[in-house]
Amino acid sequence: MSKNNFLVPGFRFAGIKAGIKKADKPDLALIYSEVPSVAAAAFTTNLTQAAPVTVSMKNIASGTCRAVVVNSGNANACTGPRGLKDAVAMTRAVAKALKVSERQVLVCSTGKIGVPMPMGKILSKIPAAAKALSPDGLLDAAEAILTTDNGIKVARASGKISGKTYAIAGFAKGAGMIAPEMKVGHATMLAYVLTDALVSKDVLTALFKKSVADTFNRVTVDGDMSTNDTAVVIANGLAGNRPFKAASAAGRKFAANLNAIMDSLARQMVMDGEGATKCVAIEVKGMKNEADAKKIAFTVANSPLVKTSFFGQDPNWGRILGAAGRAGATLKPDKVDIFYGKVCVARKGRSTGEAADRKAKGVMKHPAFTVTVDGHLGRGAFRVYSSDLTLEYVKINSCYRT
Amino acid sequence: MSKNNFLVPGFRFAGIKAGIKKADKPDLALIYSEVPSVAAAAFTTNLTQAAPVTVSMKNIASGTCRAVVVNSGNANACTGPRGLKDAVAMTRAVAKALKVSERQVLVCSTGKIGVPMPMGKILSKIPAAAKALSPDGLLDAAEAILTTDNGIKVARASGKISGKTYAIAGFAKGAGMIAPEMKVGHATMLAYVLTDALVSKDVLTALFKKSVADTFNRVTVDGDMSTNDTAVVIANGLAGNRPFKAASAAGRKFAANLNAIMDSLARQMVMDGEGATKCVAIEVKGMKNEADAKKIAFTVANSPLVKTSFFGQDPNWGRILGAAGRAGATLKPDKVDIFYGKVCVARKGRSTGEAADRKAKGVMKHPAFTVTVDGHLGRGAFRVYSSDLTLEYVKINSCYRT
Repeated sequence: MSKNNFLVPGFRFAGIKAGIKKADKPDLALIYSEVPSVAAAAFTTNLTQAAPVTVSMKNIASGTCRAVVVNSGNANACTGPRGLKDAVAMTRAVAKALKVSERQVLVCSTGKIGVPMPMGKILSKIPAAAKALSPDGLLDAAEAILTTDNGIKVARASGKISGKTYAIAGFAKGAGMIAPEMKVGHATMLAYVLTDALVSKDVLTALFKKSVADTFNRVTVDGDMSTNDTAVVIANGLAGNRPFKAASAAGRKFAANLNAIMDSLARQMVMDGEGATKCVAIEVKGMKNEADAKKIAFTVANSPLVKTSFFGQDPNWGRILGAAGRAGATLKPDKVDIFYGKVCVARKGRSTGEAADRKAKGVMKHPAFTVTVDGHLGRGAFRVYSSDLTLEYVKINSCYRT
Repeated sequence: MSKNNFLVPGFRFAGIKAGIKKADKPDLALIYSEVPSVAAAAFTTNLTQAAPVTVSMKNIASGTCRAVVVNSGNANACTGPRGLKDAVAMTRAVAKALKVSERQVLVCSTGKIGVPMPMGKILSKIPAAAKALSPDGLLDAAEAILTTDNGIKVARASGKISGKTYAIAGFAKGAGMIAPEMKVGHATMLAYVLTDALVSKDVLTALFKKSVADTFNRVTVDGDMSTNDTAVVIANGLAGNRPFKAASAAGRKFAANLNAIMDSLARQMVMDGEGATKCVAIEVKGMKNEADAKKIAFTVANSPLVKTSFFGQDPNWGRILGAAGRAGATLKPDKVDIFYGKVCVARKGRSTGEAADRKAKGVMKHPAFTVTVDGHLGRGAFRVYSSDLTLEYVKINSCYRT
């Protein structure tokens, strides 16, 4: 992966070690926009909201964004009034180091919950992070935001609007505690998308909102929603293209690029789900409406019995039908067809035989496959990406703090 | 455990090997009431309903009950019209062997889903089960209904109504796929409670309904609800006591006994949850109302991150507050107190320090403990029993069919 593939004109990045994590690894990231930029963000809808989320929600409302500071190792969640002061102090230190307004700085934290932030270390290292800022630093920043992730998650694309070429690149972290249900305007997955395209705040917000719903809000590792989930898109306009509307041809093309970046990051998160060995697309269709399809997709995707069967590469479709039946949606189990890949293992709610079962086992050997549930009741459809529930997941999460 | 402690006058039991399970273990149980009895039952509310549930729901409506036939090794679920025929054939064969009406026989199955029942074996063994019936056979029946359970679950009590002594005894199975939400009148936990008390159908139904809500519906192992959950209470009236009303002193005492049996069976199920090493009572209080407290209790109890922290004996209360915050209930995280046993680890949403953390670790070493979440918002309270999520759970469920 070459650093030069992740250049976005006008943006600089840093990822350094501040000693927040016990391990000797980078844990402080900075994103800096050389010019005032428009930004849109999506935050966790968990009522237990981490202090940096509260502060960033307020600052995003200022209209322009110049910087994002992110630390890993400590979530600054469940830390009370002191946590809020600490989050504000981080934005203030960044504002000072970069000579921008405090309100133009967003702050994100990920890591342990309920532990006061080591502010001495953080504040003393922010000037060093500012000094380390570099146009080719995206991969460093991508590394510094990781916690239990096995590796960085990055994606990039480019496009043309009114003859002008723009770049768009994104990076993200998130492996456990994923099931965001973020809402724009108001996700511990963290995701940052940067572009030099000129996009109005309204268009950026609308397109980002739709992409969040279609990508980050459709992944689930363990059904737990973090106190810190945050996704941010920043557009600095330096590409010099003409302004465009969301519904225009240019808008649709830009939306497709934005969506592709976010979809890639979302899938990378599932694939790197804590202990995960599989990325399974749960494709639910033929339901009465989309709301029913969504309920079924998430109930199947979060069922421990279904997820362990993915790990065991066992096409135990009865568990899928059982989960669908308790989702609170309209379902006629004796109408339901279930597929692993293209292999139909159940038709009208009944087994299609042992040969299909063997073929389905073959499908499940792949690291990524699709399970389709067809209700034959209507046109309601919804797709969710899920990981499997593995021995490693339990190992990681039973001794996270010790 | 002496066989003679589980005698209920007028009832006979059997548990034999019919060769349904691969392993050479008992898999066919029979409960027989020598006289026509009143009965009440609760069934799964999963739309994917196993054939024996459909048949038993119809038969319980007949008003009297003489027998229950239960097989383990095959759930007769997702088996289509053939499954229904097979379930009916089981009631018919029992009716014939015991010379009772088909409509007075309930049928339950537990085991693999989506596989046709080995009816040849079952039908040929029902006469042998009828022959094996014995007043001291409850422990045999309790063994024959097990699947992934490590051991039988039984409970007993006795009482007096209008000077007459009655016995009450129960047995149950269920280790995984537990989160019943059963509704009376209409649970793969199976539970059977037998008494020789004379209780009217109306009183029995009302008291059973309340006890199911207070016991079986408050346990969760993995949040998955079975296609086969069934709980049955049968009262044959042979104790000869005077009839009583639910609201009477006799009614309250009988209700307390019934509740104690069902509560014991429910806790035994959690303690024997697949791979479980802990039985944790999640006590939620101080919420706006009971509905909110229930949402929070189940969300905390089913959170994979919370359940793995129980396994790891890690008082990671931030995960509890995180789960509470996404439960869809009213919550002010900065008002919440969290306790492990009597140790307060978080007050007003913030850590009470490392000493409390160490004490809480001590509490978590016990096989059973209570976690209390106090919202300080009102008087809404709800308690749920949950198990931990362990390496063994994943091992059991990733290779159940192979």
